[in-house]
Amino acid sequence: MSEALRIDGARLKRDFVALSEIGSTGDGGVHRPTFSAAHLAARQWFRERAAAEGFAVREDRAGNLSARHDCVRPDARTLVLGSHLDSVPNGGRFDGALGVMVALEVLRTVRDAGLALPVHLEAMDFTDEEGTLIGLTGSRALCGLLDAADLATPRCGLSHWRESLARAGLTGAGFLQAKRDPATLAGWLELHIEQAPRLINSNTDIGIVTALVGIRSLNLRFDGRADHAGTTAMDARADAGLGAAAFMQAARTLVVEQFPDCTFNVGDVRLAPGAFNIVPAQADLKVEFRAGTERTLDAMQAAIVAVAGQIARDHGLAASHSVGGCVVPAQCDPAVQAAFEQASEMLGLRHTRLTSGAGHDTQNMATITPSGMIFIPSTGGSHNPNEFAEWDAVQNGANVMLHAALRLAEGAA
Amino acid sequence: MSEALRIDGARLKRDFVALSEIGSTGDGGVHRPTFSAAHLAARQWFRERAAAEGFAVREDRAGNLSARHDCVRPDARTLVLGSHLDSVPNGGRFDGALGVMVALEVLRTVRDAGLALPVHLEAMDFTDEEGTLIGLTGSRALCGLLDAADLATPRCGLSHWRESLARAGLTGAGFLQAKRDPATLAGWLELHIEQAPRLINSNTDIGIVTALVGIRSLNLRFDGRADHAGTTAMDARADAGLGAAAFMQAARTLVVEQFPDCTFNVGDVRLAPGAFNIVPAQADLKVEFRAGTERTLDAMQAAIVAVAGQIARDHGLAASHSVGGCVVPAQCDPAVQAAFEQASEMLGLRHTRLTSGAGHDTQNMATITPSGMIFIPSTGGSHNPNEFAEWDAVQNGANVMLHAALRLAEGAA
Repeated sequence: MSEALRIDGARLKRDFVALSEIGSTGDGGVHRPTFSAAHLAARQWFRERAAAEGFAVREDRAGNLSARHDCVRPDARTLVLGSHLDSVPNGGRFDGALGVMVALEVLRTVRDAGLALPVHLEAMDFTDEEGTLIGLTGSRALCGLLDAADLATPRCGLSHWRESLARAGLTGAGFLQAKRDPATLAGWLELHIEQAPRLINSNTDIGIVTALVGIRSLNLRFDGRADHAGTTAMDARADAGLGAAAFMQAARTLVVEQFPDCTFNVGDVRLAPGAFNIVPAQADLKVEFRAGTERTLDAMQAAIVAVAGQIARDHGLAASHSVGGCVVPAQCDPAVQAAFEQASEMLGLRHTRLTSGAGHDTQNMATITPSGMIFIPSTGGSHNPNEFAEWDAVQNGANVMLHAALRLAEGAA
Repeated sequence: MSEALRIDGARLKRDFVALSEIGSTGDGGVHRPTFSAAHLAARQWFRERAAAEGFAVREDRAGNLSARHDCVRPDARTLVLGSHLDSVPNGGRFDGALGVMVALEVLRTVRDAGLALPVHLEAMDFTDEEGTLIGLTGSRALCGLLDAADLATPRCGLSHWRESLARAGLTGAGFLQAKRDPATLAGWLELHIEQAPRLINSNTDIGIVTALVGIRSLNLRFDGRADHAGTTAMDARADAGLGAAAFMQAARTLVVEQFPDCTFNVGDVRLAPGAFNIVPAQADLKVEFRAGTERTLDAMQAAIVAVAGQIARDHGLAASHSVGGCVVPAQCDPAVQAAFEQASEMLGLRHTRLTSGAGHDTQNMATITPSGMIFIPSTGGSHNPNEFAEWDAVQNGANVMLHAALRLAEGAA
């Protein structure tokens, strides 16, 4: 009987449109950096909306905000659905916010249908997914993956971190005490727009994420020799900029040819001393690469560092590097993937399995509970006001979330 | 008889060593940026030294400081020898200062020998050759090549320019009134250390400069598209940084293969937005190239811009550029080159003809009077405390300056 159940698309849309007004940039986008006035207003709106629906509202010590639909058994586990309400600066209105609204809609649909599930349901808004302060902060706190060192060196700087916490009525110590007991959880489900055009291009309704890529960054440096750019013969130079250029090309070619499903980026290059008439003595590169497994990340890192070393030797330079931030790859739970697949089939939707090239709270949740994630087709990229999902696609995704949750709830009984 | 005449190497060395103490950085180098306390002290020392030798001291309204040895005919023309006493920050003690000291020694040698030349002799210290304020400033003023626009946009900034002039007791208006009548000049001779190892490597005593290269700079820009470095497929990017890297390699190869005596440098690259996880949307490059003739500079510029355009098309980018500062190439006077050559032959010195890859006051003087320049062998590059010329090499160069001056003086009669 419950197979006929569908979310209320009009109700979901009303809420989504109302939420999109908070921090609106007037061009389709929103500006809701973590604990900015607009972000706090969006959280307050969510709190009031959930309470008005009669759900219990919960906020943990990391600021993770949720609406709960409790089942009759107090000792039941909780199946959590959600995403995040914060945005990158001048971001889009779908990224994160849609996943929270869909989670809330799933709770309402289950409640309105009077279904007696063997699990509690919780619609979650995670704190600071986009990393205005640290990055995936709320889910890391909930999963016990945050430590004092992380809080001592927030990427936003300590004073911004402290001011932000004060505005939200939180403390750093609280973030370290927000860990939730995995034994109380039945799983985690997230819906998100796809931040690439794979689904759009293949005319597919649902992307079922198999794994979220791991990310490594390197600070790579070439040292050469500053020389007069007019009096030093072309073949007598140790040009760190030329080495950087050769590396950027060779490392990209290496990754494209030898690591076909992985990505590679040189996001920044700084040359010193940086004058028209001086051969660059030093080049500092920000290098990032992503892959689905630690094994592949290790192989990429070895190959990239080897290319840098070879180019340094060829150009009379010295190469050195340090490893920057890392994100460990995460595998989505097979049973959760199967539930998404079965829900898609039952709904007559075209689906595919794919990996996520971006980081999401799902990769933290996967370390403590069976977790999974779906993408819906979206155009305009992401992290900008042009990101856009058709409403049909949103409803399809919300129904897959609903029916996957119902299947997993039964399985968790 | 005058062929047996030689400069007094010990006297020249005493003065050079004394001058090197002024603004000494203790490591063999000097720090005498234009109109700094040390530079003003060096100028004052030169003024007193010249006056003590009985020479008339002259300072024009651009601060160009000179010692004069006048001949008996008041209407005679003046043969000017010299270089500059200012240095780059933390530069070497030879660059510029040696040329001024050699000029003074030539005046003393002629005076002590009681030679009656048909020209006046003048030992010149040009203002701000190194460009602490503007660049080749004194010689540009003397040649009438400086205009109000140059003084309104000094590269040191207006406040530094004004403070510097005030310390030296000069005015901007004075610089525009320092032009000297070319009809009063018989020529210009400069001695300088070579800022490259060609003479050292070829065991040559004297490098006779045939031309000073012209310099052009381009601000080159590639525009692509900022994309998520994790979710955007490698072949779906418009990576401005990758275009910049391809350009840096291709343009260098082009210049090495098609413009063998020219130089090319990418001194700086800036990528934007400049984050690990964002594909660069924009790359700004500082490009400089040098050649001996305007025709070659034109051909290089066309070829370099064409390479940028082709690479932009290949990478889905847009390329644009603006032309920055230019230095027009200058040819040294054939008669002056011949005088240097004959003097070298007479003195039994190995000599060669070469071009200067660096800019010098000679290139301005060449626009108004027969001008020439010699290099002497030097190690350690230039613009650093390690630049070094053996004293034998200095004496050889000073004697070539002396005898070239005597030959040109006779010819100017």
